[in-house]
Amino acid sequence: MKVVEERELKHYKKIHDQLWISNYVVNARMKTEYKVKSLLHYEVSPIQEISVVETKGFGRLLVLDGVPQISTGEGFIYNEMISHIPIITHPNPKKVAAIGGGDSGQAREAMKYASIEEITVVELDPQVTSVCRTWLTPDSYYDKDSRFRVVHQDGIEWIKENREYDVLIIDRPDPVGQAKNLFKSEFYKDVYDGLTDDGIVVFQSGSPFYNTSTLRKTYRSLKELFPIVRTYLITIPLFPSGIWSLIIASKKYDPLDADLSRLQDEDTKYINKELFLSSFALPNYVKEILES
Amino acid sequence: MKVVEERELKHYKKIHDQLWISNYVVNARMKTEYKVKSLLHYEVSPIQEISVVETKGFGRLLVLDGVPQISTGEGFIYNEMISHIPIITHPNPKKVAAIGGGDSGQAREAMKYASIEEITVVELDPQVTSVCRTWLTPDSYYDKDSRFRVVHQDGIEWIKENREYDVLIIDRPDPVGQAKNLFKSEFYKDVYDGLTDDGIVVFQSGSPFYNTSTLRKTYRSLKELFPIVRTYLITIPLFPSGIWSLIIASKKYDPLDADLSRLQDEDTKYINKELFLSSFALPNYVKEILES
Repeated sequence: MKVVEERELKHYKKIHDQLWISNYVVNARMKTEYKVKSLLHYEVSPIQEISVVETKGFGRLLVLDGVPQISTGEGFIYNEMISHIPIITHPNPKKVAAIGGGDSGQAREAMKYASIEEITVVELDPQVTSVCRTWLTPDSYYDKDSRFRVVHQDGIEWIKENREYDVLIIDRPDPVGQAKNLFKSEFYKDVYDGLTDDGIVVFQSGSPFYNTSTLRKTYRSLKELFPIVRTYLITIPLFPSGIWSLIIASKKYDPLDADLSRLQDEDTKYINKELFLSSFALPNYVKEILES
Repeated sequence: MKVVEERELKHYKKIHDQLWISNYVVNARMKTEYKVKSLLHYEVSPIQEISVVETKGFGRLLVLDGVPQISTGEGFIYNEMISHIPIITHPNPKKVAAIGGGDSGQAREAMKYASIEEITVVELDPQVTSVCRTWLTPDSYYDKDSRFRVVHQDGIEWIKENREYDVLIIDRPDPVGQAKNLFKSEFYKDVYDGLTDDGIVVFQSGSPFYNTSTLRKTYRSLKELFPIVRTYLITIPLFPSGIWSLIIASKKYDPLDADLSRLQDEDTKYINKELFLSSFALPNYVKEILES
């Protein structure tokens, strides 16, 4: 802890000797702040500041450049909902890849499906993968499944060179800095080309409460490429405003016609058959964002 | 603003001349903070500190003793979901009352139903009602509907003396201080007695993420009294963690069998027919809270 203090934690703040994570959402002019029980890990990679903290409310929390990413207390919500829904929508997925999401939580969910032969996670920062393995999920969990591999490469480059995926999971960060390229038409086109003729992709598309333009633009861009595009919602306690959108885009299969008997929900903490369908029911204010 | 500063705003904080609302959630060891564009109103009633602020992310915000209660930007979510669901579950409600919720937002939704003959809001603090009328919803809106009245009385006393309600809406605050009595067996029994033989009541029952015991205890207490008890979920961007639970308890009618054609959703911003049903689909982690 002393060593860390000397480096002057860039994205933390200290009040009366108590460390806090502070996440300011410019669009909403609001902050969410988390009291740090202990700072478990801190390092600065060539790409970003990476830290893991222990919290009372969320368990262990991965923080990148000061922004809370995922926690052991509720990470299952995001991981289950971004993976099971596209995987179930496809009747027989064999090749699955995720771009982003260094904790590989989506891969962990994908492993529950016997039909899947290949699970690739594309994560730019090897240090994020390593930190997550040490602090969030033990290495052994992944090592025992030979279908799983991690590629350390920029997702934007990777997608240009890789093809024939049944399911792609675009676990992108918010559109800030370099990540802006993950929100552009060219990227959407590359993703389309990276899928099989009946392939399916899912994108995280921001908070429909304070980030309406990300949701609207993603939806519109995908509608230009894919015959089936549907938005679904999850509530992530860690994220400001809670409400979060995901968009599924599909060349052939409609998630609303999915064979729910395939859902591997014996040990899930969030998803179940009713929730699969109900997550596609949108409040009127979200429908208006998509239609306007 | 100067006058207000002199009084030393009890529940606000000032950073570099910028006013913020800061809401600390003890259970989760987290804070949500909102930047104040302007302080529109401030007063201290015999019961509490009452203020209304203008914000960028949430519009006008009612704050009681430092805790954000409802905003013009997203108050429709809570108001619509706590009122339409019990009202629709009952096939022919005539007498409706709400305990708490000085902004009378539930009453505004109830007015959309022609069958309702009487809409009563029971709010302890007359100054809250008055502030909401001035800053959140104009007086005239309520004055034109003769079915509507506000009673300024403690809900715990009021419910002992009032009977034969078709629908009761218990818009209670969190179980802190005096409000703890709104979470006790005696109150639940009084509410049961205040309903007709086919009456329905709805309670706000806290965040299932950081306040599991409020949800569990409310659910169990109501199961001891009512044959039909169902939990449903909403996402409220203003509330820490976003995810929030409501519990409907009914003597005869099941919300899952409600006649959805009765739903007055022409000008709602949240609720619609699909959402009515889908809000009852619970994530596994919430089911576990109820069953454990």
